[in-house]
Amino acid sequence: RRARPVREVLFFPSRPCCIEALLAEAAEPGAPVRPCPCPLPSGDTALSRLVRRLLSARRSLDLCLFAFSCPQLARAVQLLHRRGVRVRLVTDAQYMGLHGSQIGRLRHAGIQVRHDQHSGYMHHKFAIVDRRMLITGSLNWTTQAIQSNRENVLVVEDAEYVKAFQDEFERIWEEYNPANYSFF
Amino acid sequence: RRARPVREVLFFPSRPCCIEALLAEAAEPGAPVRPCPCPLPSGDTALSRLVRRLLSARRSLDLCLFAFSCPQLARAVQLLHRRGVRVRLVTDAQYMGLHGSQIGRLRHAGIQVRHDQHSGYMHHKFAIVDRRMLITGSLNWTTQAIQSNRENVLVVEDAEYVKAFQDEFERIWEEYNPANYSFF
Repeated sequence: RRARPVREVLFFPSRPCCIEALLAEAAEPGAPVRPCPCPLPSGDTALSRLVRRLLSARRSLDLCLFAFSCPQLARAVQLLHRRGVRVRLVTDAQYMGLHGSQIGRLRHAGIQVRHDQHSGYMHHKFAIVDRRMLITGSLNWTTQAIQSNRENVLVVEDAEYVKAFQDEFERIWEEYNPANYSFF
Repeated sequence: RRARPVREVLFFPSRPCCIEALLAEAAEPGAPVRPCPCPLPSGDTALSRLVRRLLSARRSLDLCLFAFSCPQLARAVQLLHRRGVRVRLVTDAQYMGLHGSQIGRLRHAGIQVRHDQHSGYMHHKFAIVDRRMLITGSLNWTTQAIQSNRENVLVVEDAEYVKAFQDEFERIWEEYNPANYSFF
């Protein structure tokens, strides 16, 4: 029986929350979860919902993110990579070197990253899980945006929307192929 | 007969295009359109599609925009206001005073504008046409974003998504009521 397709709207700011239990469960399903010593609640928040959706990836995660500096989301992505999910990440050249960016850490972990070479911004903020679920909106993956800004994220399992964004991802992935870089 | 609900994905950058014919037709439907002397083509682009969707408003246009400096989109919004469409605009306090912002011009035209009072950003970029059609994505309404950035905009006629964003709009509209401003 097919579950009903996901249709979810998340609004931010999100209350701060601890996602250790989510990460532990994803790393080792069914294992007893040690309580986290941090003072944050682990309740249901926009951030925890976003993390849950990402951690549902089994085969692939395609990320197209203007800014990525949130350590919690970077840990979720690294966990998926370690679990064998094929992670590809496209980002913006001007932003990836800024203080707090997680791009270097993800590259060190072995995740494939490509970036633009233009003066215009690679301003998308979307993720595609298993070529099946689209996560898109106004939210940059930064702690400031998650905790302080008014933001929206749509989560949709809809073949038509997923295909449009997957095609855009593949176009950008090819365009930003390092083989095409020009050096001045 | 109800037309099929709109489901459209627009990707930017958009080729530059002339929207004078679209504006003239919206201002005076059926009137002969004088050819525009500008050198830009008036073909089908992501920008012209976005403008068409906005100009379809008959009763209301609710705008929740982090940055609004594109003069073409400002002209479309002013035209709707003159035509009697109820336009409400929520924006970000830090960005509305920047060079090229269209917020002052829209206020002068008599359009109701409210802004945040927080250090966090009002980072949404969505519009709701006639409480029926949601236009949302990564795109700030700036010429730079339209012409230079990789951006996405979803256009959806879907009661569930529209309701979620309309509720968010009303919450923000009330929260940013000037009666609630505090002065230091």
